[in-house]
Amino acid sequence: MAKKHVNVALIGYKFMGKAHSHAYKDVSLFSDTESIPVMKIICGRHDIPLAIAQEKFGWQERTTDWKKIIKRDDIDLIDITTPPNEHKNIAIEAARAGKFVFCEKPLATTLKEAYQMLEEVEKNNVKHAICFNYRKLPAVGLAKKLIDEGKIGKIYHMRAVYLQDWILDPESPLVWRLQKKIAGSGAHGDLNAHLIDMTRYLVGEFEEVIGMSKTFIKERPLLVEKNDLNTGLVVTEKSNKVGKVDVDDATAFLARFANGAIGSFEATRFAAGRKNHQRWEINGSKGSIVFNLERLNELEYYSVDDPSCAQGFRTIIATDASHPYAENWWPAGHIIGYGDSFVNMVADIMNTFGTKKIPTPNFVDGVKCQEILDAVCESVKKGKWVKINSRV
Amino acid sequence: MAKKHVNVALIGYKFMGKAHSHAYKDVSLFSDTESIPVMKIICGRHDIPLAIAQEKFGWQERTTDWKKIIKRDDIDLIDITTPPNEHKNIAIEAARAGKFVFCEKPLATTLKEAYQMLEEVEKNNVKHAICFNYRKLPAVGLAKKLIDEGKIGKIYHMRAVYLQDWILDPESPLVWRLQKKIAGSGAHGDLNAHLIDMTRYLVGEFEEVIGMSKTFIKERPLLVEKNDLNTGLVVTEKSNKVGKVDVDDATAFLARFANGAIGSFEATRFAAGRKNHQRWEINGSKGSIVFNLERLNELEYYSVDDPSCAQGFRTIIATDASHPYAENWWPAGHIIGYGDSFVNMVADIMNTFGTKKIPTPNFVDGVKCQEILDAVCESVKKGKWVKINSRV
Amino acid sequence: MAKKHVNVALIGYKFMGKAHSHAYKDVSLFSDTESIPVMKIICGRHDIPLAIAQEKFGWQERTTDWKKIIKRDDIDLIDITTPPNEHKNIAIEAARAGKFVFCEKPLATTLKEAYQMLEEVEKNNVKHAICFNYRKLPAVGLAKKLIDEGKIGKIYHMRAVYLQDWILDPESPLVWRLQKKIAGSGAHGDLNAHLIDMTRYLVGEFEEVIGMSKTFIKERPLLVEKNDLNTGLVVTEKSNKVGKVDVDDATAFLARFANGAIGSFEATRFAAGRKNHQRWEINGSKGSIVFNLERLNELEYYSVDDPSCAQGFRTIIATDASHPYAENWWPAGHIIGYGDSFVNMVADIMNTFGTKKIPTPNFVDGVKCQEILDAVCESVKKGKWVKINSRV
Amino acid sequence: MAKKHVNVALIGYKFMGKAHSHAYKDVSLFSDTESIPVMKIICGRHDIPLAIAQEKFGWQERTTDWKKIIKRDDIDLIDITTPPNEHKNIAIEAARAGKFVFCEKPLATTLKEAYQMLEEVEKNNVKHAICFNYRKLPAVGLAKKLIDEGKIGKIYHMRAVYLQDWILDPESPLVWRLQKKIAGSGAHGDLNAHLIDMTRYLVGEFEEVIGMSKTFIKERPLLVEKNDLNTGLVVTEKSNKVGKVDVDDATAFLARFANGAIGSFEATRFAAGRKNHQRWEINGSKGSIVFNLERLNELEYYSVDDPSCAQGFRTIIATDASHPYAENWWPAGHIIGYGDSFVNMVADIMNTFGTKKIPTPNFVDGVKCQEILDAVCESVKKGKWVKINSRV
Repeated sequence: MAKKHVNVALIGYKFMGKAHSHAYKDVSLFSDTESIPVMKIICGRHDIPLAIAQEKFGWQERTTDWKKIIKRDDIDLIDITTPPNEHKNIAIEAARAGKFVFCEKPLATTLKEAYQMLEEVEKNNVKHAICFNYRKLPAVGLAKKLIDEGKIGKIYHMRAVYLQDWILDPESPLVWRLQKKIAGSGAHGDLNAHLIDMTRYLVGEFEEVIGMSKTFIKERPLLVEKNDLNTGLVVTEKSNKVGKVDVDDATAFLARFANGAIGSFEATRFAAGRKNHQRWEINGSKGSIVFNLERLNELEYYSVDDPSCAQGFRTIIATDASHPYAENWWPAGHIIGYGDSFVNMVADIMNTFGTKKIPTPNFVDGVKCQEILDAVCESVKKGKWVKINSRV
Repeated sequence: MAKKHVNVALIGYKFMGKAHSHAYKDVSLFSDTESIPVMKIICGRHDIPLAIAQEKFGWQERTTDWKKIIKRDDIDLIDITTPPNEHKNIAIEAARAGKFVFCEKPLATTLKEAYQMLEEVEKNNVKHAICFNYRKLPAVGLAKKLIDEGKIGKIYHMRAVYLQDWILDPESPLVWRLQKKIAGSGAHGDLNAHLIDMTRYLVGEFEEVIGMSKTFIKERPLLVEKNDLNTGLVVTEKSNKVGKVDVDDATAFLARFANGAIGSFEATRFAAGRKNHQRWEINGSKGSIVFNLERLNELEYYSVDDPSCAQGFRTIIATDASHPYAENWWPAGHIIGYGDSFVNMVADIMNTFGTKKIPTPNFVDGVKCQEILDAVCESVKKGKWVKINSRV
Repeated sequence: MAKKHVNVALIGYKFMGKAHSHAYKDVSLFSDTESIPVMKIICGRHDIPLAIAQEKFGWQERTTDWKKIIKRDDIDLIDITTPPNEHKNIAIEAARAGKFVFCEKPLATTLKEAYQMLEEVEKNNVKHAICFNYRKLPAVGLAKKLIDEGKIGKIYHMRAVYLQDWILDPESPLVWRLQKKIAGSGAHGDLNAHLIDMTRYLVGEFEEVIGMSKTFIKERPLLVEKNDLNTGLVVTEKSNKVGKVDVDDATAFLARFANGAIGSFEATRFAAGRKNHQRWEINGSKGSIVFNLERLNELEYYSVDDPSCAQGFRTIIATDASHPYAENWWPAGHIIGYGDSFVNMVADIMNTFGTKKIPTPNFVDGVKCQEILDAVCESVKKGKWVKINSRV
Repeated sequence: MAKKHVNVALIGYKFMGKAHSHAYKDVSLFSDTESIPVMKIICGRHDIPLAIAQEKFGWQERTTDWKKIIKRDDIDLIDITTPPNEHKNIAIEAARAGKFVFCEKPLATTLKEAYQMLEEVEKNNVKHAICFNYRKLPAVGLAKKLIDEGKIGKIYHMRAVYLQDWILDPESPLVWRLQKKIAGSGAHGDLNAHLIDMTRYLVGEFEEVIGMSKTFIKERPLLVEKNDLNTGLVVTEKSNKVGKVDVDDATAFLARFANGAIGSFEATRFAAGRKNHQRWEINGSKGSIVFNLERLNELEYYSVDDPSCAQGFRTIIATDASHPYAENWWPAGHIIGYGDSFVNMVADIMNTFGTKKIPTPNFVDGVKCQEILDAVCESVKKGKWVKINSRV
């Protein structure tokens, strides 16, 4: 019953680096996977904070040179959690070196890069995955199950928003997420990417889109990096200068789907009070479902098949053994957290090692998501509907 | 198809006088009742404000002498909305005069009075009703229906609170509701009375109780009545003197029921933020139901008969034609208000005129409620359980 | 202190006829208005059901000929609650006869008609109002107040949906609301009209729009009218034939506002479980507000000015004396219903009689709403953004 | 900056064994604690399942003999997650061996045992802690902070329920939690223990109590242990025989507090649909707070200091850097799970090693909780109020 060990190299040690580290650390505690990850090496640009991360997160080694990792024979999986502008180069090198490539979303900053990345993983015949982790939540898995079983019927509507407010203050600085050359786009690529993937997972393929973008605050204080002489850490500070925000603060769009459904989407970082409010509602001929990431253990479900006097949206706490992934965790009613979605994601990846299973979601999903993101941008520019002509 | 007209005399013109007037005014608009009320005469102590009420509420006549009303042959129904200390005398006179007697809750300030009132209406063979209007809400009717159909199964728990906060401020004056000689008791008779009636309606009869009462603010500013020289109106003002609060601010109690269920009850006027928060939850072997008066159109319902992956509390908006009373009102999703419960109450009364139907709830319910209120008070004094030995 | 009496003639006796009758009946009970309506005469096409309505609703007279009403000197106000295709003719005649014209929404079936109507009321110098009754809810009034006081700050987002499900069943018949020649449009004119008016009231003027419409069920059973031989009533029945649905089942659109805000809108009759779900959220630089018509007494409010550890959406039960209209009703926590919004609407109208006050909303609002509805339809046809060039 | 390592021995490997293992594993990832736990050895009765747990949870060694662990010099902390009837012996031995003793709740099956345990840890001068982990949730920490800052004012009411439904089915077997000799009591010790500790933490000390207990299902199928010949695992099966349930299915009680507040409490395993519904509400002179463990990231807060038109219960998502523990986790709006409360608990313990800090909650809290649990049981038997005379 000895399990295969998968040596992991993680590139990036900030928010997503922490989230992925947590997943590798906890996966065997909560899942009985085919393979088990070994937290081999973590990689980042600055050694001093990296050393701290290495210790906190529990990685055996560390390096500031990602190219060295890729050359190592003892590494099985390259996990990319850098800002998007670095994804392409690392993924392609990793694919050429025959590694499993696991990449954060959005896949790339441009569609062209995304196509290149997919081409390389396919050409080199390596497995690949993209971290649309919300697919792996029990409540979302339950939504998928209800749809697949026909409980929602023919889908008429998808209505999805992803609302945050972390840059509401105009004095909030120009971090990398607000710079096009690093992030690719603003709320659109960061947040709509999740909505689009979720929609493709639950509703089906997009046919055409029309969008609208807005940058409410056009200039923000620049950040400068400094070395803190006491700690040796690289810290960032607001400077007196301002820089231009060249990404969207908010992007909304309408969509038509191949199956006849219609959809409405919106991502913003300017919704006061909404912290991580990914909320969507699907209406079909047989029922409806509603999800809100701030209450990620819950799924609301309405069924026209209930007796007429007893119809209503029911709040299902998706912590029962009958719900996807939930049995691995705690007894019913004992909820899981945001970080735990990554544990389920990594569990699914571990179950594909040494098997013929294809991990999902993967670079195909990443590319398709990017095609739609791109089409929305084009529709914003042109002021009219744009068809999705998928190359994959 | 000409309908019988029922001539109504209303005694009292404050909060409840307004609520009952509204009911008489609107009942034919929303219900197709056997009889129709005629708003004949309104009665109150002070003529000037009474004249204003008469005009606003739409009564044909007014008088400051309730005894005159009772003597009139053309009056069919006496509706008593005075403070509780007046209920007994009026009800007994009305019964002796052969009138239908409709009385606000609590029936009386003491159990002894309540017994007398019941005795007189029965001896004089008149119909009688008590205004536990919440029984007449569609959501409550639905709760009753679900229980009666066995959807909740054997009941294990009743858990009910009635929370308000209108005297949270210690400077709030000593109104009649805080004076034992007028009100009988405080939160207990005012609010627990509703919880007890609701419980008897939905769960069954009480067997024994143990309670706890508390008066948090022991003294409050006294009110004085003054004649406003400009308007001629009687107005009340806070004086410099304080008076003793001799009723409970809060009363909680535990109960055992004849059918084996157990219950927990609490009424308070000191729950900051709770305005009219009558909330109860019933748990049975097959399901649960939850009601909250601040969202009185909704009933939450959980069924163990749902598929295991799709169990959850569903929020039923009780505005569908399949819900009790709801068809009389508006299309589904168009909610009714607090005042509309009285319209349904009066509709039920109008349907008993000229028929053999017994109105419910009636003085028997009023007496039984009072027996339980009394037993709780006795248990508070004695510090131990008190059995309910109903005389009716 | 004798109040002016306003003689009202109501045209239409179905859903809206009932709602308006209720308002006239109850307005003096709940509001201390300058004038008081007299329920003079009700008008409809079929005398037998009209006679029933007359009695139930409490009108002094009835007629099947609306033109006669308009000629009567003793009528002060003409209230139009017919299907939209009748609005224009009646309103214009009423204006020419010097009556106050109160009209249901949408003002007309086409923008051209709407312009004519406005022109006539202005030319004839009569007062006019349109029944966007939701403006008159205490929770909505509170929203307006918070915005006007700067509590929400600069508005960035309006996000509004109006979701219903009453024609979800494909066997649901082809009622007049699904016929373009009578209704003008489907969900769009019926539901988006409310969203648009609410947005103009709270957010400001629309600048440009782009929309999408869908008719999910293209054919439905036709209805036939029959005389019921027993009751003499005209009843409708489903026939074996089907007819074409030529209105939208759902219409969604994006919008840009003059003040820099952006908006997202959607109306549908295909959202399973949503009965009367008008829900909108406004996000500004200082806070957010959320409203849901199914819980019409509540307003959710988030303020960035709260202490950082205590920020959250608060649910305000808008029944306090400090909330618009609320003092007229019941004590705090005792909620009002859908029908009561019409009472407040009529109260506002009654307060303009014999004064120089202009009722709001009025035909100008009706026209502006129609201009936006029309622009959305044009954008749907053209597949691109359409600017609003208001003529009023 | 090298951190002290604390060698941990964990006794028990079921639900709580898993929860504690998770905490040791993740603590350094999320907290910057003074000391760091080393997962040295895990102990349980049956070696085969223990071996599996050891691997899954990540312990270096395992043993089936807890006495051996206690003798080892290299163990610093003994963590007891066995059923309650084993707590006393292990804790006392551990204390005598000079170990830090960390014990699951309830501290013991009887008050006498609890006193002995406290006496021994104090006599042997070892540190001790009890796992009332819910104190360590950010939302609960925020509640404490608001109370301590006077935001709630003088407390009038505590209203707490802990509702579950896992033995609603009468065919659910007689597990150890339903046997007095192992568990001590039923819902009372398991669930009311949490409510009592929470109340002592937030409200203050209990003065007197009166309770009611009920066992709804008196007999249940017995379980038998069997060796599974294929896997070597010990498995349990329902037998044909039934055994007596000698613990409470539900226990409710009323309480008076030293500070003048009053309280209402209820624990049950018979509330259909309630999975882990620990819900409590505190009302004070300045505001109210509400918590529900099924939405453990949220705290509802009402303040009378808000402007009167903007008062309402606000839902605070306690994931902001300003909330206790929250900064260690994820960005605002990214919620934590049930298991994460143990991580915070262990972090607090780790911060006391090598310092003079006293861990809280500790055995004193465990004893005081047990005193109240015991008083409730006594009140149930006697049918009258029982004073709490704390010996500690």
